[in-house]
Amino acid sequence: MRYELYYWDGIQGRGEFVRLALEEAGADYVDVARGSGGEGAMLRLLDGQEVEHPPFAPPFLRAGELLIAQTANILFYLGPHLGLAPADEAGRLWAHQLQLTIADFVDEAHDTHHPIASSLYYADQRPEAKRRTGDFLKTRVPKYLGYFEKVLARNKAGDAHLVGAKLSYPSTRRLAFNEHGIFRHYPELDSAG
Amino acid sequence: MRYELYYWDGIQGRGEFVRLALEEAGADYVDVARGSGGEGAMLRLLDGQEVEHPPFAPPFLRAGELLIAQTANILFYLGPHLGLAPADEAGRLWAHQLQLTIADFVDEAHDTHHPIASSLYYADQRPEAKRRTGDFLKTRVPKYLGYFEKVLARNKAGDAHLVGAKLSYPSTRRLAFNEHGIFRHYPELDSAG
Repeated sequence: MRYELYYWDGIQGRGEFVRLALEEAGADYVDVARGSGGEGAMLRLLDGQEVEHPPFAPPFLRAGELLIAQTANILFYLGPHLGLAPADEAGRLWAHQLQLTIADFVDEAHDTHHPIASSLYYADQRPEAKRRTGDFLKTRVPKYLGYFEKVLARNKAGDAHLVGAKLSYPSTRRLAFNEHGIFRHYPELDSAG
Repeated sequence: MRYELYYWDGIQGRGEFVRLALEEAGADYVDVARGSGGEGAMLRLLDGQEVEHPPFAPPFLRAGELLIAQTANILFYLGPHLGLAPADEAGRLWAHQLQLTIADFVDEAHDTHHPIASSLYYADQRPEAKRRTGDFLKTRVPKYLGYFEKVLARNKAGDAHLVGAKLSYPSTRRLAFNEHGIFRHYPELDSAG
């Protein structure tokens, strides 16, 4: 099946996590807003009157008859199809639980630079951003990273992967942290302390 | 099966959404931290070395051999078992997508009073809270509520429910907004504008 991924052109954001899973699996997919369809094709699905199950926001994925939104939900669906999640219910729920926790972490990282409003630029909320970032680095980052270290350590199949003995979609997000990481977007963090 | 729900005693928070689903279905469950186990029983599962799949935070649910965390994930699991979600894949993904969007909304509502840090009291971030709340009420609440109105209007089975022709777990959350609502917690909002 050829998947259609819809996400804003020009930013990585949450769409990147779906993209990484598709890329990792070598899946057949079209990155619609970055291609000939442009963002117009995406906005027609967001706003179109004929869409029965409208997304609240990108990213969303068309997979045959399905139109699926919410990053976590898309990955939950794709995981087994791409060979990036266990096939059994317990394994799928565990991978999804980790992925939702990563989503919370990413959301908190985003809000360090938008503590007052997503609709305002970072420059319009810089003092508040500095204060929130201080707390984030001091209390939240150690809590989240400590948690994922614990998950790795308790993996009965070894600490190379979060889930079982092979790569799964929550671990493609770990890759995202490294190579396209949330901290990379915000060099201001280096001097925010 | 007798479910075990684990959530902080004394607050409604995210645990309430799981509790509402269990109550709506008349499920057999124990509210462990509110019962004889107390919060100690919950903390032992959070911190216990022997827990293979540790939760990051409450709420979590024990269902036989499964220990499931993340509110959205718990409801995704419980939905079909409690008769509060469609049984087919497309319906389950749609209900989950809506529920994740509600979770985002609730998270943003929470942050109106904790824009700087969850670890700080509201009183320690009151000016920032007032500013964030202003934006939340002006831009985010209409966007979210408008979205859910659209979802209701496009439901082919009628606008009485978000998903299909009967109550599903995202709609028990609508009940939560009304009866144990996020606004009810924060009377300060009435004069924040």
